[in-house]
Amino acid sequence: MSRSFNFCSGPAALPEAVLKKAQAELLNWHGAGVSVMEMSHRSSEFTSILESAKARLTRLLDIPDNYEILFVQGGASTLFAQIPANFVTDHKTVCYLDTGAWSAKAIKEAKKYADVIVSGSTKEQNYTTVPSWEELNLDPNAAYLHITPNETIGGLEFDDLPETDLPIIADLSSTILSRSIDVSKYGMIYAGAQKNVGPAGVVICIVRKDLLERSDNEALPSTWSFANLAKNNSMINTPPTFAIYLADLVFEWLEALGGVEAIEKVNEQKAARLYKAIDGSKLYSNPIDVAYRSRMNVPFVLADESLEQTFLAESEAAGLRTLAGHRSVGGMRASIYNAMPVEGVEALIEFMRDFESRYGA
Amino acid sequence: MSRSFNFCSGPAALPEAVLKKAQAELLNWHGAGVSVMEMSHRSSEFTSILESAKARLTRLLDIPDNYEILFVQGGASTLFAQIPANFVTDHKTVCYLDTGAWSAKAIKEAKKYADVIVSGSTKEQNYTTVPSWEELNLDPNAAYLHITPNETIGGLEFDDLPETDLPIIADLSSTILSRSIDVSKYGMIYAGAQKNVGPAGVVICIVRKDLLERSDNEALPSTWSFANLAKNNSMINTPPTFAIYLADLVFEWLEALGGVEAIEKVNEQKAARLYKAIDGSKLYSNPIDVAYRSRMNVPFVLADESLEQTFLAESEAAGLRTLAGHRSVGGMRASIYNAMPVEGVEALIEFMRDFESRYGA
Repeated sequence: MSRSFNFCSGPAALPEAVLKKAQAELLNWHGAGVSVMEMSHRSSEFTSILESAKARLTRLLDIPDNYEILFVQGGASTLFAQIPANFVTDHKTVCYLDTGAWSAKAIKEAKKYADVIVSGSTKEQNYTTVPSWEELNLDPNAAYLHITPNETIGGLEFDDLPETDLPIIADLSSTILSRSIDVSKYGMIYAGAQKNVGPAGVVICIVRKDLLERSDNEALPSTWSFANLAKNNSMINTPPTFAIYLADLVFEWLEALGGVEAIEKVNEQKAARLYKAIDGSKLYSNPIDVAYRSRMNVPFVLADESLEQTFLAESEAAGLRTLAGHRSVGGMRASIYNAMPVEGVEALIEFMRDFESRYGA
Repeated sequence: MSRSFNFCSGPAALPEAVLKKAQAELLNWHGAGVSVMEMSHRSSEFTSILESAKARLTRLLDIPDNYEILFVQGGASTLFAQIPANFVTDHKTVCYLDTGAWSAKAIKEAKKYADVIVSGSTKEQNYTTVPSWEELNLDPNAAYLHITPNETIGGLEFDDLPETDLPIIADLSSTILSRSIDVSKYGMIYAGAQKNVGPAGVVICIVRKDLLERSDNEALPSTWSFANLAKNNSMINTPPTFAIYLADLVFEWLEALGGVEAIEKVNEQKAARLYKAIDGSKLYSNPIDVAYRSRMNVPFVLADESLEQTFLAESEAAGLRTLAGHRSVGGMRASIYNAMPVEGVEALIEFMRDFESRYGA
């Protein structure tokens, strides 16, 4: 069987060119005589990989000098606790937007460390839209405002940032590198790698340097302190070296394609075509406010729920892999990250049309 | 250039057969149409890998039914904090043996969570031996006794466990699967993968189930609670899937070789030959009490320190990679984990003899 079109929400598809390069040098990286997996993290070879990844990411996102790039272990879910643990010092409160399942998880962890003000929530609208920026309840003395600009499960995405003087901390796990952003508007960005960056096992963090001072705190676990990670170039202990290497290869691939601006156009096209197919159908539908539909994660339900298992079995057989929605919500979900080629989206649309013609009312 | 003999202390050499298998199936695992790196961690394919890894490890170490195997992110250094955070509940104290640099780091992190009793220390002997078990200062009400049976930097290893009713928690990062152990004597074993198990990015934990109850604590970060990890089969969030897959391949390789008993004999031979070469030389020496010399990490110094850089440059050129000692102590160190073939140790000994004949006094 050849390679499938892989719609998994994460760990997600990687560019085939990246996997082929990793495969070619898996036993012997650049003549070093060893795999990247077998190198000391403090070797000149691995250090060159780490520095390359940082330099490429800096170029791709135009990261200003007053930010540090950190590679952190544990997954974004660990960061949900690690962020308040780092930044709640003299502050008593933290502000969170509640726009979906991942916001809610971040809020749950933050409550272990601070008084959480839910500054705005669309839970009562089933998370189908975002709160009004004008009506947010923001505490000017809070440590930060946390937002989740892409809700991977619900399929909601927003680009505009709330107006506030609080440092904005954003979980960009699913959208990093998929669209242009102005890094200078954020206090901190973090993103689990396993969507648009590389394999699971590392979180990309971009932190404004002035905020790091708050986390220079001897009471924190050594490997949790962002200040300590920055001082040690993400190598307090052995980092997940192979995941960082894959990230560097993905960044290289993206630069060769023309960078974030280039892939953003492709992502707009892919999402537009898929939503058009959904909206033009009687079988499929997507509940999210059109202005806030995610370009990366496209959930849809079938008018006749009893067809779901047939849809999943037939799509899988057609080489369209992992289209089931998140176990907490059911339905379907097509995650179409950077590594999903236009042809994959076209094949999905073609399959959906054919399926509807055979099973639709 | 062909593959080197790699003496790195970690990330360490992996079995070539394992790397070749991973290479062959890197783009398409068992006809699934995707790389292991691209699979949902909740897919039937990845679940089968995780269960295979657990079953193989259970067989290899003869793990009793009343233990849970966990795959934890963050590295053993994160566990240094996570362990007291999990187990210090009604207990006020924890006991630690101080037998080297890694013990000392574990103690430093534990102090953030509990009153640490250093039950025995050989710091004054430069960590060249172990404390007398009879003279340990053990608090019967402590939460546990933490030990580091292999000090990777100093090159010290001990096999005998102290007599105590306290649950023994052991950092076996460098020795797991290198020698037979009786798991039932431990409360918890943990080991960073990047020595004898797989690539960096995952820690293997084996925890006695009755101890897990203590960590069923809502105040802990969700991804830190061992109880929560056990309930969720190590998948509270996305685990480092590729590292777990490599671990499964390493376990498979070890089973095919005849298991821990078989590799232990090889490891004894390799270490005996190398120490014999050191002891029989006028140029090289190792300071550790002969009874407690590590089979895995063999540090040695040159009588003439000014030869160190020449030794490192020439050994590297001879395909003997990463022989420098830890940056904190200098000198040389040959790490000869399971994946180091006998031929690698023989090549090193041959090189050392030749070097001595050319540069020795």
